[in-house]
Amino acid sequence: MKTQSQIKQTSFHPTRGFIYNYQKLVKDTVIPYQYEVLNDRAEDAPKSHVIQNFINAANVLRGKDKGDGFYGMVFQDSDAGKWLEAVAYSLSIFPDEKMEANADALIDLMAAAQDANGYLDTYFIIENQEKRWTNLLEAHELYCAGHLLEGACAYYEATGKRKFLDVMTKYVEHIYDVFINEKKEGYPGHPEIELALLKLYELTGNEHALALAEHFINVRGVDPFYYEKEVKSRDWIVWGSDATNHRYQQSHEPVRDFKEATGHAVRAVYLYTAMAHLASRTNDAELLAACKRLWKNITECQMYITGGIGSTVHGEAFSVNYDLPNDTAYAETCASIGLMFFASKMLENEIDGKYGDVMEQAFYNTVLAGMELDGKRFFYVNPLESIPGIAEETATRKHDLTRRPGWYACACCPPNAARLISSFGKYAYGENASTAFCHMFAAGTVDFENGLHVECSTEYPYDFTVNYEVTGHNTLAIRIPAWSKNTTIRINGLACTLPLEKGYLYLPVEGKASVTIELDSTPRIMYPSAKVPALTGYGCVMRGPLVYCFEGVDNDNDVLSLKLRNDAPITVLEEGSMLPSMVAKHRISDAKLKEQLCGATKLRVPATRITVSEALYSDEAPTSVNCDAIAIPYYTWCNREKSQMRVWLPLH
Amino acid sequence: MKTQSQIKQTSFHPTRGFIYNYQKLVKDTVIPYQYEVLNDRAEDAPKSHVIQNFINAANVLRGKDKGDGFYGMVFQDSDAGKWLEAVAYSLSIFPDEKMEANADALIDLMAAAQDANGYLDTYFIIENQEKRWTNLLEAHELYCAGHLLEGACAYYEATGKRKFLDVMTKYVEHIYDVFINEKKEGYPGHPEIELALLKLYELTGNEHALALAEHFINVRGVDPFYYEKEVKSRDWIVWGSDATNHRYQQSHEPVRDFKEATGHAVRAVYLYTAMAHLASRTNDAELLAACKRLWKNITECQMYITGGIGSTVHGEAFSVNYDLPNDTAYAETCASIGLMFFASKMLENEIDGKYGDVMEQAFYNTVLAGMELDGKRFFYVNPLESIPGIAEETATRKHDLTRRPGWYACACCPPNAARLISSFGKYAYGENASTAFCHMFAAGTVDFENGLHVECSTEYPYDFTVNYEVTGHNTLAIRIPAWSKNTTIRINGLACTLPLEKGYLYLPVEGKASVTIELDSTPRIMYPSAKVPALTGYGCVMRGPLVYCFEGVDNDNDVLSLKLRNDAPITVLEEGSMLPSMVAKHRISDAKLKEQLCGATKLRVPATRITVSEALYSDEAPTSVNCDAIAIPYYTWCNREKSQMRVWLPLH
Repeated sequence: MKTQSQIKQTSFHPTRGFIYNYQKLVKDTVIPYQYEVLNDRAEDAPKSHVIQNFINAANVLRGKDKGDGFYGMVFQDSDAGKWLEAVAYSLSIFPDEKMEANADALIDLMAAAQDANGYLDTYFIIENQEKRWTNLLEAHELYCAGHLLEGACAYYEATGKRKFLDVMTKYVEHIYDVFINEKKEGYPGHPEIELALLKLYELTGNEHALALAEHFINVRGVDPFYYEKEVKSRDWIVWGSDATNHRYQQSHEPVRDFKEATGHAVRAVYLYTAMAHLASRTNDAELLAACKRLWKNITECQMYITGGIGSTVHGEAFSVNYDLPNDTAYAETCASIGLMFFASKMLENEIDGKYGDVMEQAFYNTVLAGMELDGKRFFYVNPLESIPGIAEETATRKHDLTRRPGWYACACCPPNAARLISSFGKYAYGENASTAFCHMFAAGTVDFENGLHVECSTEYPYDFTVNYEVTGHNTLAIRIPAWSKNTTIRINGLACTLPLEKGYLYLPVEGKASVTIELDSTPRIMYPSAKVPALTGYGCVMRGPLVYCFEGVDNDNDVLSLKLRNDAPITVLEEGSMLPSMVAKHRISDAKLKEQLCGATKLRVPATRITVSEALYSDEAPTSVNCDAIAIPYYTWCNREKSQMRVWLPLH
Repeated sequence: MKTQSQIKQTSFHPTRGFIYNYQKLVKDTVIPYQYEVLNDRAEDAPKSHVIQNFINAANVLRGKDKGDGFYGMVFQDSDAGKWLEAVAYSLSIFPDEKMEANADALIDLMAAAQDANGYLDTYFIIENQEKRWTNLLEAHELYCAGHLLEGACAYYEATGKRKFLDVMTKYVEHIYDVFINEKKEGYPGHPEIELALLKLYELTGNEHALALAEHFINVRGVDPFYYEKEVKSRDWIVWGSDATNHRYQQSHEPVRDFKEATGHAVRAVYLYTAMAHLASRTNDAELLAACKRLWKNITECQMYITGGIGSTVHGEAFSVNYDLPNDTAYAETCASIGLMFFASKMLENEIDGKYGDVMEQAFYNTVLAGMELDGKRFFYVNPLESIPGIAEETATRKHDLTRRPGWYACACCPPNAARLISSFGKYAYGENASTAFCHMFAAGTVDFENGLHVECSTEYPYDFTVNYEVTGHNTLAIRIPAWSKNTTIRINGLACTLPLEKGYLYLPVEGKASVTIELDSTPRIMYPSAKVPALTGYGCVMRGPLVYCFEGVDNDNDVLSLKLRNDAPITVLEEGSMLPSMVAKHRISDAKLKEQLCGATKLRVPATRITVSEALYSDEAPTSVNCDAIAIPYYTWCNREKSQMRVWLPLH
């Protein structure tokens, strides 16, 4: 079985194009804005108090007054970890002295807030010393530790500075003491530290980190009643979460027995990511088999076409197979980010194009939809239908907002999107000793450790030609997306027919090669399985990895009376569209460019529009006239005035 | 404007046919079973304690021990009122000494449980004496009083016995003292007593009852903050209901300003019923205008095609216009019963066929669907789609059960259905001095007070011929349903063309006449307005007043892959179907008859069945083959083994 090991972030340098634009946006807008939030200086954001929490914790440790105490969610510290991680990735692409100085200052603060024994969690240091490790179900200590640890690994990788890594390694030792040496029972309420510990192990070879990750994965669900016992053993709660719902807690059985994805979607995919990572490092066939079952269940029974997962707001969770409502969808941005993590780690177990297909599906649709085109507003929830007047207004759809808010009190998604976008190269490229893998298309320079040097240029996802100028002696493997039904491959200018192996094209490179892939740019109508009740009789439109949607603002303010025709071709509208490389110089400040969806290519889709009857029900069939509907990429929805939005339309 | 006054129940005597069968079922099965429940002798029902509560309350009043105290919901007494009301209606059709003796005994118990000042509510008499009238928001005192009063009126009408009526008249005087003489602020948390007081006024001319009803209607919403003040003024709660949601509490504005139906659906239509009744008695044009607005809003923007209302489980409430999801529907049985009440009282303001159309829509679909064909199990919630594996399983659909339960702890619907069915004649027929109205079709003998005598025979809703043999001197008005596009009218055997006036046929009768109406029996496909997001691209099937649905058990256990064709006629399947008059002798005991849906006429509906793809999403259009789908009346769903059910199918 072909597998990869992970390539270092520093080896990918974006040049220009779609990914570059987004990484630049994160550097110029998202990261600076988030820093203002962490410092409580952002005007339109709820108070964060993240940095003040570290200051207050440090004061408590030095015997001083706790100031205004702890404020925020119990997992408030994690925002600092995610911000530092995003900064780290960004610095490796776009050096920035001021940003790095801010990061160093925050790291100094964190170091000062670390207890002598290594413990570091401001919620417990400031006000709840004696409660440490007594509420794994809700208190997110291990979750926060995980995010800080991810930040520390990334910051060391990007800057070579050890301070944050040393702080977190000390904390890991403390956790190791508690759970391994002192044999404290239990496992993380919100999985996250497992995947972070494995990152630390990859980076430094820390065997305690590996052992601790393995421990948390192995003990999970062996005693499904752990949380219930924990609730009984303590006299405090955070929210009073239901400890008896074992499937929701992903503790209903040992992880190697998992058959389907259950419970909180983000927790699920973070856990599965660690399981897949561990399986690849320990050649644990049973664990890998569980991961494959979970992958199959998610992608074949529980995933929106946008790559969104976790269809219900109740617990931000997976529902049951085929329960994928468009209007009440949860489909949290973070869950799709976690799905990308999971896919990426599955690639370390087996090279198969299906993982990259889903990474793209999640990234280009749900992850990007989570952020306004100007990088200033964010969606947590990503519905596939939004009808103003119903969405957001009704009790079942309070979560389905019709505008992206500027910030959230529970702000997991914005910094998560920032770190994912900034580290896109980690997911796009991978390698092992003999092969360099291109899992996703991202223009830039890639230096593989196995010796291949690649210059990739493309205007993907708005142009379907990808060129690789390769030097070195090794195999280059390029994923050809499953949706590309007609792909032309040119090697040194010559079109050639080559077999794919599980979705990958394998090209031995001897010295120098020019490889050009021309992917299928034909828009296509997608049909759901009739197993999905919410979608029967419907179709939607995709082009390349992009799911398209219909907004009222382009369609006479009424998308509900539109039906999709599949008897005529869809037209790609070049007018107003712009290649990604042209967007960067306008971006952010140019409100008009946002109004033009940053030049995103629209489609003219054959449709019919039916008469809208005033009667609620009628025995007269509505008449319909052919019309053209205008579709825009789903990720660009809700960037203009508020209007109806639908991904799926009834088929004519 | 043509209007009616209410006909007395005793003047309608069902003979045989559909309504007779149901009234017999209620008498033979539902009422006796409910009596066992009230006495805590029904094996498969949760403890009711209703009768024991009255015993315990009587003991408390006599200074004895309270026994096992009060048990049940705060509104537990109302079950006794509804049961007695159903008994009363039933006795007027089917005299039954034993049933009447049981009722008399219960009335004796209730009389013993009445406080010296007239107060009668076991929750407060047994355990919470000092809390009376302090929690109008939640404690349902006025609601229980209303149901007992309705029972008392019906029992007096049916039996001529005054005891219950005297008890309740005394209670009404006490309430009058509290709210009128002592000027206690506030209005009912759950409207109900308003319509009951108006019934008392109609029956006995009690002016205090009229004044009290008018008072509660007039003060409602004038101070929208009443409930909030009430919450602050007391130190106890029932559930801790949100007093700040004025729209939900139907107290956001004075009722004459109401623009659309809001809040708890049952409360809403009970209130609107009383408003319509009062408007007809006081010629209150402003109040009537509000009722018309509410009627229009409900029936044109917030009603399922089954006559179900209140689309959301959150608060059992109206949602917003056009938010009518099939799968998460609430559509409580009681709300459709209340909608019939409202329609019936609108007819006392203006004769218009639209009210009868909706009464039938609600009755023949949602109200009847609320009860299993054998009268032993009941639905509270009536979804229009039920997919086992999703329905009932997911957090959003815990309320959408896939089997009717035997009884509920909150048992409002079963006795409500029993009293509605038993008093069907009250809704089917009405009159004023010059005209006898036939609003709905029900076989039997009707003696109008204005002198007309009518013998109606019909096998409606399974046969579409209705015959009236009329004697007397007055006008007979027959509603011709709006769905009947081709109606033949024969007078004394001669087909004639007569104009309709707002959906009614007006026939002067001089001495004797034979009138035969042949309604349109053609099954029809119904189309939703494109304003309803949940229904775009869908169609459903109706025949007469019956909405049809598709169950897996008739359709290869898969209704999700079915699409509806409208290019070929729907066939009425006579095989296995049975005229309503033939059903009665088999009914109840014959399990096989239930399996055959009591002979309900099925339809063979032109459809296509698409291939079900294993892939969740595919760019290959599914192939489809023409097929026949079998449809059954919606009210008969879920009487066989558990399977998928859909009312609406995608249109091919």
